Amino acid sequence: MKIITAIDSMKGSLSSEEANLIIEKVFKDESIVVEKVAVADGGEGTVQAFVTNGKWETVRTTCSDPRGKKVEVEFGWLQDEKTAIIESSSSCGIHFIDHTQETHPRNTNSYGLGEQILSACRIGADKIIVGLGGTGTIDCGIGMMASLGVKFFDSNGKLVSPFPANFSIITSLSTKDVPKRISKLEVLIATDVQSLITGEFGAVHMFGEQKGLKANERETYERDIARFSQLLLNGSSSMPGDGAAGGLGLALRKIFNAQVCSGLELVAQYTNLEKKIKDSDIVITGEGKIDSQSFQGKVPIGIAILARKYDIPVIAFVGEMLGDPIEFEEAGISTIVPIVNQVSTLEQAIADAEQNLLFAATRVKKLLFLIK
Amino acid sequence: MKIITAIDSMKGSLSSEEANLIIEKVFKDESIVVEKVAVADGGEGTVQAFVTNGKWETVRTTCSDPRGKKVEVEFGWLQDEKTAIIESSSSCGIHFIDHTQETHPRNTNSYGLGEQILSACRIGADKIIVGLGGTGTIDCGIGMMASLGVKFFDSNGKLVSPFPANFSIITSLSTKDVPKRISKLEVLIATDVQSLITGEFGAVHMFGEQKGLKANERETYERDIARFSQLLLNGSSSMPGDGAAGGLGLALRKIFNAQVCSGLELVAQYTNLEKKIKDSDIVITGEGKIDSQSFQGKVPIGIAILARKYDIPVIAFVGEMLGDPIEFEEAGISTIVPIVNQVSTLEQAIADAEQNLLFAATRVKKLLFLIK
Repeated sequence: MKIITAIDSMKGSLSSEEANLIIEKVFKDESIVVEKVAVADGGEGTVQAFVTNGKWETVRTTCSDPRGKKVEVEFGWLQDEKTAIIESSSSCGIHFIDHTQETHPRNTNSYGLGEQILSACRIGADKIIVGLGGTGTIDCGIGMMASLGVKFFDSNGKLVSPFPANFSIITSLSTKDVPKRISKLEVLIATDVQSLITGEFGAVHMFGEQKGLKANERETYERDIARFSQLLLNGSSSMPGDGAAGGLGLALRKIFNAQVCSGLELVAQYTNLEKKIKDSDIVITGEGKIDSQSFQGKVPIGIAILARKYDIPVIAFVGEMLGDPIEFEEAGISTIVPIVNQVSTLEQAIADAEQNLLFAATRVKKLLFLIK
Repeated sequence: MKIITAIDSMKGSLSSEEANLIIEKVFKDESIVVEKVAVADGGEGTVQAFVTNGKWETVRTTCSDPRGKKVEVEFGWLQDEKTAIIESSSSCGIHFIDHTQETHPRNTNSYGLGEQILSACRIGADKIIVGLGGTGTIDCGIGMMASLGVKFFDSNGKLVSPFPANFSIITSLSTKDVPKRISKLEVLIATDVQSLITGEFGAVHMFGEQKGLKANERETYERDIARFSQLLLNGSSSMPGDGAAGGLGLALRKIFNAQVCSGLELVAQYTNLEKKIKDSDIVITGEGKIDSQSFQGKVPIGIAILARKYDIPVIAFVGEMLGDPIEFEEAGISTIVPIVNQVSTLEQAIADAEQNLLFAATRVKKLLFLIK
């Protein structure tokens, strides 16, 4: 019997690789082969997923964090294909946000992501996959664009610094200083966020609160970002993915004409995941929390869609399950196994995740083979 | 395929009967027969378990609650064997305790249990099973003994009222007014509590707090109960079970020479449970919380011990699991399935118990038959 394990990272507790290792430890025996595929949806852990699976190597570099301080970051590099995978959360992740005035969305930007793109270019990248998700900025990519050479001006033609605080006074931009080598890059956006730039599910209303935007600031911020984004959209409509990572999706489309892809689909493509699933008897997947949002490009549903093509059963281990399992089963997950063992707080559940997954995997193996 | 389901009640949420019904609903199909056995450990739900399973009928009667107020209660009655099953928690259960001075352990007693025993006698009982567990009193059975005719005196030979508040002044007792018909009853104690009357695991230190005894009252109470219990022990040593239900175990031994039995064993005996397990393919059991205390006569471990004799696999659904599942598996439970789906409070888990058990049973059925 062959089992494929492809569990997404469980936020704050287990990486995809660590979760897969636990499954291997439990299931592997004389009659069961376990193959591990690290997966991700574009957010935190995406670079690690690529690097763990294949011929990708890790490149360490330095860039700016959302406040402009220097931080060490890394991205993935596939020499054969001159392709880099960069995770936006490494340079502008929400872990940099401490809810002080200094890290308020108006005062932070994605400058570091642009620096990472430049670094990838310097080592010869022709193609860059940018994972969007888990960022702490809502700058519509103004910082990233600035580091790539875009200039922003006020109504007097005066150069304006690239921060959301200046959205309301920026009236024009120029991309003529963006090096040709940069603008000709092939860029793919890996994300599970289908948001437009503005509106109810946009960068401000959907994600503003967790990034430190107060309720009474939201309307103004939304208006400013709507105004600024018009400069980028240039009369066209916003597209799904534009609102990802505080509007980085839109900026990447503007500069690179970037295509939005599912993070999982890209991982699947680079790891030959579909073929592996086809040749397996059971597929194991999972994520921290399965809920109605999981249908928007999250890992387990994506895996289930692949597995259903070949009628391979899918078991999904989840930190918690919200909602009726029936709707997930209709998407192709044979059964969802919540790993919590007891009444607990989120902190406790995160702290116990490793042990809980171990226990849950053990009981699933028992049940699968209980009837002889 | 034949499945036996024998799940203990889950405190505050599902009765044994209700839990078994959910299992039947999920598992029963063209190829699976489900047989339900209501079970209990001597505490709340014990009478219901007997009545649900067989030829027992319910007898309604009136007796005193711990404060002396009249309450309607019921007990089980098996006419063919002139046997009654009485649950001590019905007359002196912890649900009567409101942590006011009126229901403080010093001011409450088990008088009502004696009245229930007398009621059973009046309809012709030769044998009485008394389920101990879930009581709110710590009266060493003084109330019950008084209602059966026992008299208590102080050092001046003056009759003293039967409350723990008087433990310290009682110096003698007389059983000569207990009717012969009563003292000749065969009494079995059904309990999962193995406590001695005093000490670290005794009636005061183990259960005092939940019954409203404050930390600074415990030493005095322990001393008083130690003193009073000497009158009952009459020089002999305390035995396991004496400390059950606030010392009712000791009083029942004193008056009836009652035998301590496991509640589950008694249910098993009256429902032919062992034979049913022997003839099944899978046994399903469960309880609200499985932890190290579960080894002391709780339902799932008791069921597992029976099932192991015939090598029948046992699945235990639990509200929560504390500790390493390995230790429970060594006792014969093939696998424990916690039913919680998410991070939650105890109140939420109790409120969701029915749905959680339904979901958990559904995923177990899926897993059992996943590999074709």
